[in-house]
Amino acid sequence: MSDENAAVRPTDTAADAPAATTPRPDVASLTALLDGEYAAVRQRVREVLPEHADLLAEAETLPKEAFRERVKETVLDLTADGHTVLGLPTAYGGGGDIGASIAAFETLANGDLSVMTKVGVQFGLFGGAILQLGTAKHHDRWMADIVGGRLLGCFAMTETGHGSDVASVGTVARYDAATDEFVVTTPDDASRKDYIGNAAAHGELAVVFAQLEVNGERHGVHALVVPIRVDGQPAPGVRIEDCGHKLGLNGVDNGRLWFDDVRVPRENLLDRFASVSAEGVYSSPIESQGRRFFTMLGTLVQGRVSVGGAGVTASKVALTIAVNYADRRRQFEAGEKGVEQLLLDYGMHQRRLLPLIARTYALNFAQEVLVGNLHSVFTASANGQEVDEKDRKLLESRAAGTKALATWHATRTIQECREACGGAGYLSVNRFAALKADTDVFTTFEGDNHVLLQLVAKGLLTDYSGGFSNLDQFGMVKFVAGLAVDTVVERTAARRLLERVKDVLPGGKEDHWDVEAGILDTDYQLAMFRFREEHLVETAARRIQGGVKAGRNPGEVFSDVQDHVLATARAHVERLVFEAFVDKVKAMEDGDERYAMELLLDLHALSTIEADRAWFIEHGRLSTPRSKQITVEVNNLCRKVRPIATDLVDAFAVPEELLRAEALRS
Amino acid sequence: MSDENAAVRPTDTAADAPAATTPRPDVASLTALLDGEYAAVRQRVREVLPEHADLLAEAETLPKEAFRERVKETVLDLTADGHTVLGLPTAYGGGGDIGASIAAFETLANGDLSVMTKVGVQFGLFGGAILQLGTAKHHDRWMADIVGGRLLGCFAMTETGHGSDVASVGTVARYDAATDEFVVTTPDDASRKDYIGNAAAHGELAVVFAQLEVNGERHGVHALVVPIRVDGQPAPGVRIEDCGHKLGLNGVDNGRLWFDDVRVPRENLLDRFASVSAEGVYSSPIESQGRRFFTMLGTLVQGRVSVGGAGVTASKVALTIAVNYADRRRQFEAGEKGVEQLLLDYGMHQRRLLPLIARTYALNFAQEVLVGNLHSVFTASANGQEVDEKDRKLLESRAAGTKALATWHATRTIQECREACGGAGYLSVNRFAALKADTDVFTTFEGDNHVLLQLVAKGLLTDYSGGFSNLDQFGMVKFVAGLAVDTVVERTAARRLLERVKDVLPGGKEDHWDVEAGILDTDYQLAMFRFREEHLVETAARRIQGGVKAGRNPGEVFSDVQDHVLATARAHVERLVFEAFVDKVKAMEDGDERYAMELLLDLHALSTIEADRAWFIEHGRLSTPRSKQITVEVNNLCRKVRPIATDLVDAFAVPEELLRAEALRS
Repeated sequence: MSDENAAVRPTDTAADAPAATTPRPDVASLTALLDGEYAAVRQRVREVLPEHADLLAEAETLPKEAFRERVKETVLDLTADGHTVLGLPTAYGGGGDIGASIAAFETLANGDLSVMTKVGVQFGLFGGAILQLGTAKHHDRWMADIVGGRLLGCFAMTETGHGSDVASVGTVARYDAATDEFVVTTPDDASRKDYIGNAAAHGELAVVFAQLEVNGERHGVHALVVPIRVDGQPAPGVRIEDCGHKLGLNGVDNGRLWFDDVRVPRENLLDRFASVSAEGVYSSPIESQGRRFFTMLGTLVQGRVSVGGAGVTASKVALTIAVNYADRRRQFEAGEKGVEQLLLDYGMHQRRLLPLIARTYALNFAQEVLVGNLHSVFTASANGQEVDEKDRKLLESRAAGTKALATWHATRTIQECREACGGAGYLSVNRFAALKADTDVFTTFEGDNHVLLQLVAKGLLTDYSGGFSNLDQFGMVKFVAGLAVDTVVERTAARRLLERVKDVLPGGKEDHWDVEAGILDTDYQLAMFRFREEHLVETAARRIQGGVKAGRNPGEVFSDVQDHVLATARAHVERLVFEAFVDKVKAMEDGDERYAMELLLDLHALSTIEADRAWFIEHGRLSTPRSKQITVEVNNLCRKVRPIATDLVDAFAVPEELLRAEALRS
Repeated sequence: MSDENAAVRPTDTAADAPAATTPRPDVASLTALLDGEYAAVRQRVREVLPEHADLLAEAETLPKEAFRERVKETVLDLTADGHTVLGLPTAYGGGGDIGASIAAFETLANGDLSVMTKVGVQFGLFGGAILQLGTAKHHDRWMADIVGGRLLGCFAMTETGHGSDVASVGTVARYDAATDEFVVTTPDDASRKDYIGNAAAHGELAVVFAQLEVNGERHGVHALVVPIRVDGQPAPGVRIEDCGHKLGLNGVDNGRLWFDDVRVPRENLLDRFASVSAEGVYSSPIESQGRRFFTMLGTLVQGRVSVGGAGVTASKVALTIAVNYADRRRQFEAGEKGVEQLLLDYGMHQRRLLPLIARTYALNFAQEVLVGNLHSVFTASANGQEVDEKDRKLLESRAAGTKALATWHATRTIQECREACGGAGYLSVNRFAALKADTDVFTTFEGDNHVLLQLVAKGLLTDYSGGFSNLDQFGMVKFVAGLAVDTVVERTAARRLLERVKDVLPGGKEDHWDVEAGILDTDYQLAMFRFREEHLVETAARRIQGGVKAGRNPGEVFSDVQDHVLATARAHVERLVFEAFVDKVKAMEDGDERYAMELLLDLHALSTIEADRAWFIEHGRLSTPRSKQITVEVNNLCRKVRPIATDLVDAFAVPEELLRAEALRS
């Protein structure tokens, strides 16, 4: 809602800065800033993708089967040039650099998203599982063929009846000591593997997640390699069904798998974290079944990081088209009689698009931090170094949260951009159709966003010490109920960070910083983000404990506080995203690029606070005059960002050939 | 954001009502309530649609051309049975009932939306334009063939360069007295007709909107009938291009049209509102060119009413699937160890879906009022009765605003429902793919929603007296600047209605109603909606006048207040929607159905106020304790609605065969 009282227009804001201070950032420098450490990797992918631009048009018209073949060919072409295997070991022809592999993957999202997704399925999920859950014998047997594009496979985790709740999968792998084999069985239709990429047409092997049973004893979910297709036909005992047509990503052959007592040699168990001897003795270096499970699920982290990054890139493609269009398209007379006004000169159009640019930059930088963390943890792990348990959990939490925010952002941004291009945005040639349809599943795959935010909240509420042994709410409520609230809060990073930033803010000592500091003071903005998180964590813990103490059923307690718990997680991730942006800008040298980023940083901070201003007011941290002032300032910042809007999106460096939408851009 | 303080839980709310008061509404009675006056028409369409259910699967796989033919066949089948021509005159075989025709159209939205859209193009836009803009000679010549399904045609208004700004179209129709013909010309590519349904494959005639030029003088936009296709080939001088693949609605053959000095007889001018004599004398019963233009554009009203109604129906289909799924699907242990909880028993899941049900009911009833208004005005007009100019403008405003809210609601609801069904929601067989893809264009077709809300705001700010002579902002700013603010506000219905409701509220006389009345008091809720609208109108007018008086450029003034102006329009339409819901419930007899509707009414009112609570707080009409109380009450209401959630969606009466999604429903 808008401010309507010119009198509240503040005098201490950037609104009074002279127009002459419009920055003139260098687009290439902004691209370098966005690209970060892996600029060269990204640049190579950007150079090769236009060769495959035709695929974007073919996606519209080719029948599903033919399109799947074209996508497969393209994936193999990219693989032959090494762009898809940067994360696999150099010993087998890979690049040996997980960070680089994510950067390449994110850049693939500029092009056809079926190609990108199939790359993720094949090399991230399938190849990644063999790499990270398997041992040398598995690597020696399969990795060279994977890297060479000769062996395609599946990551068969999800089941129809157990979407985001992987611990509950029904598939069973029973050890038969008599034959030294595992017998893999799908007990019922709810336990069929579902939505599995590469299953319907191209996969020969599947990494199957199943309840491991040895001598009648269950040891939880483990992964083993099962052949599913031989010479193009389903392997004996394997039933395969095509998931059929989807809203998007129809170049990926998703399918369903049933196993009817399929026997595989004992060696096919991916045994890095647990093994079974020929005699049927189960052993694992990780004692707790829960911890073992979540260690194995760690491979999913890479998938979540990848999907979140793809969401950021897809947002960039949409914004590049819509913002450039709005800077060309004239509609209605507004300023003077007889002259139609550019769309981007309308206040509402600025409001619709410019905060989305700011948020896209913020998420780009947050994603960069996340990829750095992933790279450290996974590289250390690959080198056999001990990885601190808490670091791993922080990585998992950050990956889950960033994925949720980035993919929701993509859905929202692409929708807004589509609408901002009117009817033209509906034509496939103008690119939004595929962007919308293909990215839509991002919000639920690699973990439903709401479930992922619950994972984040659980980490916050337990200070990552409760063990990720159980994703369910029952366990969390009981765990939190057993802690002292003060303990929960004292442990949070938000509390410590809030105290730190208050120290440097006017009025901070007296806890009046929210009144005395200026709204364009980055430390004020940081304090707002941190206060919200800290307060939500504390009150969520308090409500859970209150409910349990009152003798209520944990499920009911959880159901009551669930929106609060999710808000807590969201506030946490918002804080991390904002801090990543702040850190990036602080490290820049003075100049037009830095000034441009400062404007975007303010726009991101204030539009984010504005969106939740009711909460800040309700919790005594925002007076209504100041709230209105923030709205005015968001509008001011939009006016200031408007002259550089096309520079900001051109810096996304989406290859021209992939934008299509010629009619919108000329 | 959530409430976290159990202490603020109010004692005067429905939360304390005993659980025994859960209503047990009769589903058939709710369906009758939703169906309203045209229940029989809706029921007939619901009975016939399942015969065409196969089309939903064919849409996934058929090539564009083949699917277009199947859609055409289906449209002709439905036409043979009379379901599509209820709005055309009985004299030519139609139903002669505009209200019934909208009801049938809305019900068609349960099925394939290409079929529905093609029906709209053919009978609503093309047939409607001939009916409403033409005279007896046109009706006699074409109407029987249209009603008989023997003549398909186009409504060629939109141009590439002038999407929502129809007054600026570039196509010219010049009268040539020497041959008694009009010469129709497309002067440049920006003036080509674009996105025109029936143009790419099936249309023989087009109603073309062009600048009428007689003796070198321009008379504004007029419509005339131009043959575009003869024996399946483009007519001489007509160039046709296929718009190609779209995100959705690929069964509709959208195309582009260029006219290269195409000559048509003088009689082809649709001359109800303006004619040209053989000698080249232009005459019109409507003096003002602007008023004439908007009278002609009145035909668009029917299109907007139809699209809004289709949005409501599409929301119903999505909710039917997602709510029934959430009532069956179990995921994660929550309540007790070993038992997975139903999705719909999670607080967050209730929050995501139940307010959307409430809003769908609200929009259903608001749409019913709108269709009633449309029926009155159009029936009077068809019978040659004088229609009050203000009634017509109120209808246009209401149609524009309801269309905007209903189509945005559809986009949001379908997205939420898709995500609430996880990965399964992404499979075409589960219905959301087509719902998402096909409805996506609703937000921009028949007028971009933002432009439509500006039309609404303009009516409010000028009390519908400024004439709809110019949609542009320039004209509006200048007009508003010339009025006294008090005049603007005194005239608003919101002011009068607010005063009326305050009279009956506790504390109303002292203007303390916002403190003294209970939040479940419908009059309190009405007062909140009305206060917001009235305050926004007043302050928008004040800001516009302040800007102009300060000597600023009208375009800049408008750009600055644009978000405020749009918020004003939205508040107005929200008020109308809520009032329609209130009126409907008030007219019900006591009983379980009424109690169920009262719960939904409260849920709709409070979740709508909650969404904008920052504004109410900022404007002194909501204390923070009361704001938190509203959040608590929304959660309470979700708990109370939850047991009847499936009844509420089953009452939408979506034919089983059209739901598909068998795996989600069993």
